[in-house]
Amino acid sequence: MCYKLAPVGTDAAFQRARRPEQKQQRQDAILDAARQLALRDGVRNVSLTDIAEEVGIHKSALLRYFETREQIFLELTAQSWLGWAQALHAGLDGGSPGSADLVADVVARSFADRPLLCDLIPHTALNHERHVSTSAVRRYKLTSLRAISDAADVVRRVLPDLTGDECREFISTMANLAGSLWQIANPPPALARLYTSDPDLALACVDFVPRLRRTAVVLLAGMVPSRSSA
Amino acid sequence: MCYKLAPVGTDAAFQRARRPEQKQQRQDAILDAARQLALRDGVRNVSLTDIAEEVGIHKSALLRYFETREQIFLELTAQSWLGWAQALHAGLDGGSPGSADLVADVVARSFADRPLLCDLIPHTALNHERHVSTSAVRRYKLTSLRAISDAADVVRRVLPDLTGDECREFISTMANLAGSLWQIANPPPALARLYTSDPDLALACVDFVPRLRRTAVVLLAGMVPSRSSA
Repeated sequence: MCYKLAPVGTDAAFQRARRPEQKQQRQDAILDAARQLALRDGVRNVSLTDIAEEVGIHKSALLRYFETREQIFLELTAQSWLGWAQALHAGLDGGSPGSADLVADVVARSFADRPLLCDLIPHTALNHERHVSTSAVRRYKLTSLRAISDAADVVRRVLPDLTGDECREFISTMANLAGSLWQIANPPPALARLYTSDPDLALACVDFVPRLRRTAVVLLAGMVPSRSSA
Repeated sequence: MCYKLAPVGTDAAFQRARRPEQKQQRQDAILDAARQLALRDGVRNVSLTDIAEEVGIHKSALLRYFETREQIFLELTAQSWLGWAQALHAGLDGGSPGSADLVADVVARSFADRPLLCDLIPHTALNHERHVSTSAVRRYKLTSLRAISDAADVVRRVLPDLTGDECREFISTMANLAGSLWQIANPPPALARLYTSDPDLALACVDFVPRLRRTAVVLLAGMVPSRSSA
């Protein structure tokens, strides 16, 4: 993603960030700080002030690089989608044709290995896309839709009996489920203790990878047989 | 759901709410106000102050009836699950055995007819369960898990070839997807215009009912064939 940066002003802390590569360094430092805080505290708990403090700059200086807190997280989400698509390539390029179980394994693991992406997904439509400019949403959408298309193509090379639309449908559904299941599978400690200690609440405990993998297997098994149902 | 209310104090506005039925009326008025505001403005945009103003009481008086804003929404979610399970009974009790398409229709419609439930679902694990007491979460979970079990039983009576676990898995997955898809299918007006006007973003447009129904059909078609995959 390429963001057009606002011109850097005369603020002492940022005087040296005049060349494009220096601006890029600032931007990367902000994204790194947001990533670390979100992984430690959860996306919901990270404010713009937290990020500015972590980078060691003033909030007003940070806002020369990003429109809002939400744009920082949208950019992190876009970057995460690209890394996620690469992981699907790594796990599936060269996979034996026809192995739906391999696809289910790799797709489930691609989300399990990316807790930040899983945490970011439900916040995207709910919050982040609602607090940035339309052009920032457009850039984000182009990246995420391309990653989904890329992932669907990877799946289709392993499962050539499926259509392109079916592979995209599979990947989109898995992404939405990964986002919602991850929140349910990672409750705060007090609730985790409640769910494991109270037999009436046993079904509230969700084991992320097996559940996601199982749904992938069911979806892939259902694609061809369901074609007759309009 | 039965909430143990804090004793009503001497606040003028609430002096008359001493009898249990009066307290229940107050509580219902608060829930009604929250429901109307959430349907109009979206759950994310409704604060405790908004609800208190809508009821015409002071925020401190409102907090005698509910722990937090989030407990009000958790109670609305519990009520919505009960109504949703009743809708599945109404649509499927007496349905011809074996009609997976009927199940997919009724389940997709049960969510489409309940925009408030769909809006509440992603907020539940993300926010609401995190800002109430453990006992409030327990009460909520017992209600929602019972509604899911009830719905799974209804589905199983129409599709007796499926196991109880498979029906529960189907219903839970549909509920999670309904929550995430609903947010994506209902963007703010500026984004809705962007997605429909820009051909590169056509895939960002999600049509809620057909998408949910289609996923239901695929999941149901995949349950039996996927049994051989561990």
